[in-house]
Amino acid sequence: MRDFSQNIDWLSINTATIRKQHGQEVALNTLLDQCAAAGIRAVSPWRDQVAAIGLQATAAQLRAHGMSLSGYCRGGFYPAADKVGLQAALDDNRRAIDEAKTLNSACLVMVVGALPGALEGKPHYKDIGRARQEVVDGLAASLEYAREVGMPLAIEPLHPMQAADRACINTLEHALDICDALDPEATGALGVALDVYHVWWDPKLAQQIARAGAKRLLAYHVCDWLTPTADLLQDRGMMGEGVIELKKIRQWVEAAGFAGYSEVEIFSQRNWWQRSGDDTLQACKQAHQAVV
Amino acid sequence: MRDFSQNIDWLSINTATIRKQHGQEVALNTLLDQCAAAGIRAVSPWRDQVAAIGLQATAAQLRAHGMSLSGYCRGGFYPAADKVGLQAALDDNRRAIDEAKTLNSACLVMVVGALPGALEGKPHYKDIGRARQEVVDGLAASLEYAREVGMPLAIEPLHPMQAADRACINTLEHALDICDALDPEATGALGVALDVYHVWWDPKLAQQIARAGAKRLLAYHVCDWLTPTADLLQDRGMMGEGVIELKKIRQWVEAAGFAGYSEVEIFSQRNWWQRSGDDTLQACKQAHQAVV
Repeated sequence: MRDFSQNIDWLSINTATIRKQHGQEVALNTLLDQCAAAGIRAVSPWRDQVAAIGLQATAAQLRAHGMSLSGYCRGGFYPAADKVGLQAALDDNRRAIDEAKTLNSACLVMVVGALPGALEGKPHYKDIGRARQEVVDGLAASLEYAREVGMPLAIEPLHPMQAADRACINTLEHALDICDALDPEATGALGVALDVYHVWWDPKLAQQIARAGAKRLLAYHVCDWLTPTADLLQDRGMMGEGVIELKKIRQWVEAAGFAGYSEVEIFSQRNWWQRSGDDTLQACKQAHQAVV
Repeated sequence: MRDFSQNIDWLSINTATIRKQHGQEVALNTLLDQCAAAGIRAVSPWRDQVAAIGLQATAAQLRAHGMSLSGYCRGGFYPAADKVGLQAALDDNRRAIDEAKTLNSACLVMVVGALPGALEGKPHYKDIGRARQEVVDGLAASLEYAREVGMPLAIEPLHPMQAADRACINTLEHALDICDALDPEATGALGVALDVYHVWWDPKLAQQIARAGAKRLLAYHVCDWLTPTADLLQDRGMMGEGVIELKKIRQWVEAAGFAGYSEVEIFSQRNWWQRSGDDTLQACKQAHQAVV
């Protein structure tokens, strides 16, 4: 396993981690400057943040800072109430792939979606099997275009507590089954973004990480699971604050051949988003060296 | 599939569903009288509720009402910080088995426990593999005694969002793997309590229900998953209020041979626990006949 204790060479910051500072939204150009000042050499920004300051401006700023993208957040959200919605999702994913390519991202992270309307509290249907089929069909269509332009798609299995509203792919095993169906040769065009927050509980985690291998492990996200957890979405902990066995999981991931960034992605309404960006970045760096 | 639309013969009430009324705790003897008045013929009470009014008094009241127990809540919580704690858990489970026997329960529901201390926000260790081994060892010991007295143990896989603090068995597949290891003959002494709230999201649910079969399906719990869900523990919905495909899952369960009660177990701090017991019981009866 790589030694992370001496430097932050393999630390990436998902910009959601510092998108709120002192409780206020901060623009991406400021976040990127803060990351650069902290010596961070890779980030993973969100589409809405990029749109707010402009795609070309983002690309130029990343070049100026010599910063890589460990991933781009995010494509997906395929299931829809009707054909018009399904087509709109395909079109939007095509744009996301183009943006990821412009930003030279390592991959496009796919949060695949679930019951359409559920995120707004009004699910159009309850058939999760239908949602899963719409996801597979959507991924197949996006993959075709992603292969053309050379942008790997990384399916992110989300925690089962988000199965209704955000992603109906909820285990690494299920994500890999879909990868095997759509990309049986394991070309590197389709794989997974493994976020410890979503998968740490899984009794088959070690087995499925080994199954995934280097060709499928496209991104690795860290944070921690707090006890108690106050909110299903925005109460993640800094690495070391919770119960996830971070070194054990990274050992499995690296044994399977992953050698990329360890990307910190923390949504924390009650704690980290109330602090300064500098405080949070310092904590990320320390935790990365000590406990990841 | 059985027709539930004409009566409530197969409706059971987990007493947690009405344990709070107008926001206040209500004693079990009152709850049992309310259930009897509502024509309910089976319940599943909790140990603390029974202890508060006395085991023999509970048994007598159940006999007077001619009420069955679809289950008894609950054994488990095996993992502990040290040997003294592990032994205390075994002793306590032995008492739970005796109580379940005295109450003539169909099974003892096992919420197996997870990282010791996590429920109090102070996990003694983070090794979920160790917790899982302590669970298997504990279940093996309890099973020996449960076989002697003839009380089936029903492992309840809990939702993965409760893996840290309440139960480190989080999928039906994992629960059945343990059943197969400890009771390879499928004698009926060890099985599962299947609660739709915990397992509805699982892409392998249909497959694993078929695997379980009648010998392992010892209890069936219903409620619903709300969108949004405001709390990890106490924000369950009444059947029909959420996104769980109740009829589809019951079809799978009955096709596998289950022919027992459909037990309503709802923890609802913001809604059902703020109502009267009669209101909640009426809603359970209507939902049972209409959507379960």
